[in-house]
Amino acid sequence: MSDGAGARLARQMEFAAELDKLKGVLRKTTLGSGSRVENSAEHSWHVAVMTWMLAEYAPQPLDVQRAMAMALLHDVIEIDAGDSFCYDVEAMRTKDEREARAAARLFALLPAEQAREARGLWEEFEAGATNEARYVGALDRLQPLVQNYLSGGGSWKRHGITVEQVVERCAPIGDACPALWEYAQRMIDDACERGYMCGAGEVSDAGEPEG
Amino acid sequence: MSDGAGARLARQMEFAAELDKLKGVLRKTTLGSGSRVENSAEHSWHVAVMTWMLAEYAPQPLDVQRAMAMALLHDVIEIDAGDSFCYDVEAMRTKDEREARAAARLFALLPAEQAREARGLWEEFEAGATNEARYVGALDRLQPLVQNYLSGGGSWKRHGITVEQVVERCAPIGDACPALWEYAQRMIDDACERGYMCGAGEVSDAGEPEG
Repeated sequence: MSDGAGARLARQMEFAAELDKLKGVLRKTTLGSGSRVENSAEHSWHVAVMTWMLAEYAPQPLDVQRAMAMALLHDVIEIDAGDSFCYDVEAMRTKDEREARAAARLFALLPAEQAREARGLWEEFEAGATNEARYVGALDRLQPLVQNYLSGGGSWKRHGITVEQVVERCAPIGDACPALWEYAQRMIDDACERGYMCGAGEVSDAGEPEG
Repeated sequence: MSDGAGARLARQMEFAAELDKLKGVLRKTTLGSGSRVENSAEHSWHVAVMTWMLAEYAPQPLDVQRAMAMALLHDVIEIDAGDSFCYDVEAMRTKDEREARAAARLFALLPAEQAREARGLWEEFEAGATNEARYVGALDRLQPLVQNYLSGGGSWKRHGITVEQVVERCAPIGDACPALWEYAQRMIDDACERGYMCGAGEVSDAGEPEG
């Protein structure tokens, strides 16, 4: 291994070591059992498996490999920026600036061209303008919907989230993947009937939900 | 959506819901901070990101998309079979039978052809005969090595693992990815000097280590 190759690998392994910290970033959604909140690393894994599994419902043509990489990397910036609860108006106000700073530090740990690729995938995800970004963005909303359904309304109940907020938050699923949206709507209707969300009249303490 | 398409998606979403349980399967390795052991879902995420990032060091030609899917799915059978600590001789004796039963139930939740694909990827990983399987197998040993190094010997110390056991466990890294093995060896040597592992004379209580 030449010094150049060794230095390159050392940077990549430094990034690998840094990734470990995403396991300590806590989200608002709980596990299906409701026993604890999930972290952003296991959430990213869940979204990435769904990316592999549900590609047939995505806008076509879809580059599945790019979409999977995007799913794996979409929350890495939270290592520095933290998780911004999507129904928390104040957190959402400062989210962009915090995340841009995080991206500048974290992706720069990688060798230059790989840093550009990783940051590019994250920026593409955030912009939501490509098929891959719209698809992974839809799954990033669908996965916590599943978790909240499984846990009997976990983070919705705890934070006073209404069905209108959930529907608004999940709308991008419909824009990207009509079949998944049809499924999600049935899940939302059922969750509503079971009393997993707050009524429209009740006041939310957090602004917005996590799918 | 026709009934057939709806039934297909319902099976896929049942698998998605089942995946949540992997977040509750605890491994022996700890987070880098040493604050808690990691679970198999976040481990799988970490291995999958490394699969994307380190592909240049893999045996070529490599199908990166297949390798990423393999990394994401390689531990799903632990939902039923549990994590088998690689230095636990007794657990390793019953591992194959427990995991085959788990694979039969879990992958069968998916639509038939997708079940075959997922189970095929897991069996390929276990057999370790293809480039993708050897590469992901190497990362599955490298990732806990990084964790153990970061935590100052976390699971090695707690379970009385020796450097000889770690080297034997990590040997597949060398078979698949010489450059990564060179890096891993330096990490093992350094860990050894720092006293992160037991001496050869000390008795292990568990049989074998997790990388």
